[in-house]
Amino acid sequence: MNFSIIRYILFRVLEFAAFFLILPCLVAVIYRERAGFAFAAVMVVCIIAAEIGRQFKPKSNVFYAREGFVTVSLTWILLSIVGALPFYISGEIPNFVDALYETVSGFTTTGATILPDVEVLSKSVQFWRLFTHWIGGMGVLVLIIAVLPLSGGYNMHLMRAESPGPTVGKLVPRVQTTAKILYGIYIGITVLQMILLKIAGLSVYDSIVLSFATMGTGGFGVLNSSIGSYSIVVQNIFTVFMILGGMNFNVYYLLIVARKPKEAIKHEEARVYLCIILLASALIAWNVRGYYSSMALAFKDAIFQVASIGSSTGFSTTDFDLWPWFSKAILFVVMIIGACAGSTGGGFKVSRVMILLQDARHELIRVVHPQIVKKPHIEGRAVEDGTVRSIQSYLMIYLLISVFSFLLLSMDKYDFTTNLSAVMANLNNTGPGFNMVGPVCNYANYSIVSKFVLMFDMITGRLELLPMLILFSPKTWKKY
Amino acid sequence: MNFSIIRYILFRVLEFAAFFLILPCLVAVIYRERAGFAFAAVMVVCIIAAEIGRQFKPKSNVFYAREGFVTVSLTWILLSIVGALPFYISGEIPNFVDALYETVSGFTTTGATILPDVEVLSKSVQFWRLFTHWIGGMGVLVLIIAVLPLSGGYNMHLMRAESPGPTVGKLVPRVQTTAKILYGIYIGITVLQMILLKIAGLSVYDSIVLSFATMGTGGFGVLNSSIGSYSIVVQNIFTVFMILGGMNFNVYYLLIVARKPKEAIKHEEARVYLCIILLASALIAWNVRGYYSSMALAFKDAIFQVASIGSSTGFSTTDFDLWPWFSKAILFVVMIIGACAGSTGGGFKVSRVMILLQDARHELIRVVHPQIVKKPHIEGRAVEDGTVRSIQSYLMIYLLISVFSFLLLSMDKYDFTTNLSAVMANLNNTGPGFNMVGPVCNYANYSIVSKFVLMFDMITGRLELLPMLILFSPKTWKKY
Repeated sequence: MNFSIIRYILFRVLEFAAFFLILPCLVAVIYRERAGFAFAAVMVVCIIAAEIGRQFKPKSNVFYAREGFVTVSLTWILLSIVGALPFYISGEIPNFVDALYETVSGFTTTGATILPDVEVLSKSVQFWRLFTHWIGGMGVLVLIIAVLPLSGGYNMHLMRAESPGPTVGKLVPRVQTTAKILYGIYIGITVLQMILLKIAGLSVYDSIVLSFATMGTGGFGVLNSSIGSYSIVVQNIFTVFMILGGMNFNVYYLLIVARKPKEAIKHEEARVYLCIILLASALIAWNVRGYYSSMALAFKDAIFQVASIGSSTGFSTTDFDLWPWFSKAILFVVMIIGACAGSTGGGFKVSRVMILLQDARHELIRVVHPQIVKKPHIEGRAVEDGTVRSIQSYLMIYLLISVFSFLLLSMDKYDFTTNLSAVMANLNNTGPGFNMVGPVCNYANYSIVSKFVLMFDMITGRLELLPMLILFSPKTWKKY
Repeated sequence: MNFSIIRYILFRVLEFAAFFLILPCLVAVIYRERAGFAFAAVMVVCIIAAEIGRQFKPKSNVFYAREGFVTVSLTWILLSIVGALPFYISGEIPNFVDALYETVSGFTTTGATILPDVEVLSKSVQFWRLFTHWIGGMGVLVLIIAVLPLSGGYNMHLMRAESPGPTVGKLVPRVQTTAKILYGIYIGITVLQMILLKIAGLSVYDSIVLSFATMGTGGFGVLNSSIGSYSIVVQNIFTVFMILGGMNFNVYYLLIVARKPKEAIKHEEARVYLCIILLASALIAWNVRGYYSSMALAFKDAIFQVASIGSSTGFSTTDFDLWPWFSKAILFVVMIIGACAGSTGGGFKVSRVMILLQDARHELIRVVHPQIVKKPHIEGRAVEDGTVRSIQSYLMIYLLISVFSFLLLSMDKYDFTTNLSAVMANLNNTGPGFNMVGPVCNYANYSIVSKFVLMFDMITGRLELLPMLILFSPKTWKKY
């Protein structure tokens, strides 16, 4: 294990953290808020630490997959601790574990909160809270790759470990260029949403921070009613941009950069993702029609909620925990399937489900007609056996983490539905669950142990299971 | 598809059904019950049908895997319909769908009931109800293979389709001998339990029928309190024999027939199965200790319940739905893992979990050290890639059936916990779930649609997913 390079990258992460903290400082200056001192203090500490870190140059450039996984895991843990400090120091989240939970939930774009009342937060703290979604959505290491002239082969290993999806979508041969294109698209769509929200009547501040939370598929809001008290037009803008946030960014690359609209339209994962959202919305709208004065209003709330849960954002316009169980069961399934690979969203990922479904169908054919050999296909290409195998192992690991988290949470005071939905809402980076962690409730009353379990689930879910498990696996540290 | 041979075997199944029906007829004669006429009538119809069927000899002996799967599925559906007739005709279960549900639950050794009061049943109907568990436990086709001099290669295909486990455990080279040995062991242990229960103070009738229900890992009881009102000694006998029913029968073969006690003790699946039961019991006993006057009593109920759920029997000594959620979460996980392959029990099966766990560990090593190639091992042998792959596909199919069943059940009137535990309790052939389908409740109030979904789950679970899916898959009927 090449510790010197890991240390080197972690210090660079602190540099970037300091850079990010400038923004809430500015917000504090504009609104003349005391919380600004907390941000400034943390920023200064980060700068000093980063400066000290500059002394230690990496001794070697050896960088393999395991260095990639370990670096990514440590980056996210470090970033969460640093990000939690302003909440804690400013006194707006006086309990450090809660502050940490809120920050992890922010960076991992989960949006599960421990705050019973988010409206009492100062503007700068609120800004930081929602901005973490945006940073975490595309990933801080992807940003570092895009901006810094890092040489050597480690770009790919970092990118692979931080980007979601069963296979890494290198858009162009150079990893750095890919990272630049991804961030370019990301910034573009976010700004577009900001403009549309402003036009639709939101304040500049709300337009900015809520766009961060949408495009990162986060789910923190500035009001206790989440998105419920905005106009229907504003709600529909959110619906569209939540769906866009959960879309495979390859589609935007094909559409905007490569200018191949035909290929973009044919993107299979994106199509299936949209079909799932439409089908689930239609079923729920039909199921909840009795709660609304018109079918159109029922569909508006249904598609908002499906887009929110399916893209792993977690906003709500209504207390969907009051809906019938059929609707909630659909939301639960949509939550687990999650967004597209190569998006800012979480979940098991549509493409993984597609590949495993095809393989399950082939298994049925295989036992009856052993002579027929079929391979799953996606985006017009056969999926290699090794990849199918890895996705199948991924499913088992996913289930294992779910089961253990669920058992640990069950030692707390809540019921089956609450605990299972809490695990799924955190592991899939969605946010709200059912019952005691429903959309009008929060995670404050879980014990400290449960909160750490859920934090582990959030980071593990955001990094697609392997990096965190590899960090804690003794085999990683063994020489072969 | 060779229909003539499938038809031939199905008529032989009717012959066996007629033979089975002799027993409840005898019970009705002993207790002078009117229900005996219902059994006699169905028996006569079966005999006549079987005699007519004798006219149609199979045109060819071609018999491949798909004929095996289709035959097994149709056998179980036919047997369930025939078995339900006496309940319906006798008027003791006046609703045919309910009678069918009860019979499917019986044959599949699930033990989920739609009867609010089982104590009002006549002795002969009660006998039939519990005897179905015993028939279904080892499988009717395994019995046919053991008894009839069927020539040709289809023994293996039938055995493979009806026996539980990822790989078929042929104990000896000849399939018929294997089937004979299995039934010999099965009868032996059942008789042993009958004797012990009689010595412990139960009536002859109760000893016989309850031993059927235990060794088939069924779970139907003769009292509304299930096993709760028997003495502690009797309860402990049940605990032991439930565990024995869920054990891989290879262990008994090694112990009794092959006389290799050392190998029997080393059987890995059996060891892990016992470890799971002990660990789960210890955790639950600790968790519920406050409900009992002594730790010993807590452990007695805990191990009874874990053995009952883990072996997929489904008896209860107490309303475990009143236990804290941690205990229930453990029972839920134990329910899904289930019993050993090659046992009469249900569930995902311990050996499948063992293989997938090893593969998940290897995946973590694989991404970090790609040069290391490791294969899962069980019983001292490496598991072939094809088998691992099949088990992984099996997991996905298992999840798919669970998800679709859960969604369909959610359209009914019950909550998340009830529906999810109902699906799992039926698919894993366990019986009781939580909340509205808890140990003191029953499945009577589900809609007809939900009951058919659960019946599908029970048969699908008993036959290990593939046969039922293959029966309903259009690809099966296609020529290649």
